[in-house]
Amino acid sequence: MVECVPNFSEGRNAATVDSLERAIGSVPGTMVLHRTSDIDHNRSVITFAGEARSVAESAFRAAAAAQQLIDLRSHSGVHPRVGALDVLPFVPLEGSTLGDCIELAHETGERIWRKLGIPVYFYEAAAHRPERRKLEDVRRGQFEGLREMALVDESRKPDIGGPSLHPSAGAVIVGARKFLIAFNINLQTEDLRVAQEIARRIRASSGGLPAVKALGLALPSRGLVQVSMNLTDFEETGLDTVYETVARLAAERGVAVEESELIGLMPRQAIERAAAGFLKLGTFDGQRVVENWLEALRIRRA
Amino acid sequence: MVECVPNFSEGRNAATVDSLERAIGSVPGTMVLHRTSDIDHNRSVITFAGEARSVAESAFRAAAAAQQLIDLRSHSGVHPRVGALDVLPFVPLEGSTLGDCIELAHETGERIWRKLGIPVYFYEAAAHRPERRKLEDVRRGQFEGLREMALVDESRKPDIGGPSLHPSAGAVIVGARKFLIAFNINLQTEDLRVAQEIARRIRASSGGLPAVKALGLALPSRGLVQVSMNLTDFEETGLDTVYETVARLAAERGVAVEESELIGLMPRQAIERAAAGFLKLGTFDGQRVVENWLEALRIRRA
Repeated sequence: MVECVPNFSEGRNAATVDSLERAIGSVPGTMVLHRTSDIDHNRSVITFAGEARSVAESAFRAAAAAQQLIDLRSHSGVHPRVGALDVLPFVPLEGSTLGDCIELAHETGERIWRKLGIPVYFYEAAAHRPERRKLEDVRRGQFEGLREMALVDESRKPDIGGPSLHPSAGAVIVGARKFLIAFNINLQTEDLRVAQEIARRIRASSGGLPAVKALGLALPSRGLVQVSMNLTDFEETGLDTVYETVARLAAERGVAVEESELIGLMPRQAIERAAAGFLKLGTFDGQRVVENWLEALRIRRA
Repeated sequence: MVECVPNFSEGRNAATVDSLERAIGSVPGTMVLHRTSDIDHNRSVITFAGEARSVAESAFRAAAAAQQLIDLRSHSGVHPRVGALDVLPFVPLEGSTLGDCIELAHETGERIWRKLGIPVYFYEAAAHRPERRKLEDVRRGQFEGLREMALVDESRKPDIGGPSLHPSAGAVIVGARKFLIAFNINLQTEDLRVAQEIARRIRASSGGLPAVKALGLALPSRGLVQVSMNLTDFEETGLDTVYETVARLAAERGVAVEESELIGLMPRQAIERAAAGFLKLGTFDGQRVVENWLEALRIRRA
């Protein structure tokens, strides 16, 4: 079983996102699990899963549908992006490995270039070059900058295809990675610097919280700003730590938390650990959850 | 499937609690799920479950073992109690109803009196009189007071047996109720009034939080005090609300939270809702948990 979490550069036109979802769901054996769209990001994330072959086919159809439906030349949004289908990560679930997902990423990337003429960058575990492991490094300059740089700077050329990006669909960044939690905290201010400062304070790359990536973004439609995060290892830094740190840093600046958002899914353990952390429950495990025992009892009776 | 959560008046002698646990586990089809002992309460809670007939047999053996092993005349602890086996609630899980549990409570209570000579009070859904629905009303006066009152005050007489309580084992309070969450918050002070005041502020019966029972207790062995609670409906008042309210009331008194304790088990939804509440995640449901989807996908493949 493999999960795939494509990020598309369209978050305002629901009919377009419906079409993308239908393209993904048109493959037998693929199940769409969740969908989030954001107006200010102008971006949607559709989470789906199934057996490897079905997921690869859905991923390809997602790229083709995005190419048909999205034109980056007229796209604007607060979240950085380089492609109509911007990011395409494959994630191992039960019964598959990161190695399987690397293979899927490479096959799907090849097919996207060969059949659709959209160049491809590989990132994270699927990266061909060490300097492309981090998504933010591949995406630097965004569509508008990268389409220039790819032509003149060898280090920014796509891994497959190019050097020109596709005129309307840009490039697709295809990868394989472990499960991550995409988690945003929205703050009650319109001052973008507050979100940017907090993002800088907490991100691992500037000495903040381990296994946390963070970006400060404006949400003009809601009159808020956002600390937009990826938690790449919730056992190292959990949702409770991230939330309490952001809330404290915001309070120091006289700003309150409006709400949080979870993009896509998270593992059960992440929510159990977060609750235990907030409650100061000490160690907490699934042994304390009655439903887990019901399963054990059912198995015993069967 | 039925859960049973006997509370025993012994929390210091581990060998005794081991024997109680063995007595419960000696019935085929019964599974011991959890066990908690507290030195200051001098009390243990053993959570077990299984099919109704097995659970009833284990409950009876628990009463017999407690009568053998515990003498209330030499028992002291900060938690109120009237029996060696103090409280014996039956709780419906999957496939059983509160009605089934009322029947189990009445049968088991009869048997405890007939075979062991320990008088029985029925409480909650199993109560014979409306004024005995609440456990705290049945237990008022504790062992030392109740054994006098039961002799002279018709309204305090046991429902079965008596009017004398058993000299060493007291009485057993047998009941049927819905699942509840037993949850304690320990505060960094030795001033018992702080815990008592907070308990009074938050308990439903004095106009506090709905579906919350609360007691302020001292924990001399740890140099702390405790707000000891039962949450009878976590959808009405969840762990996050209770924790944040107690923490705030404590902070107003210059006191910090040391830790929380969960006694026994809780439903998965209670922890998911608590995390969502703390994180200001808005509505959260099992659809956002990857493991729930894995199950759905497994079923689809099978």
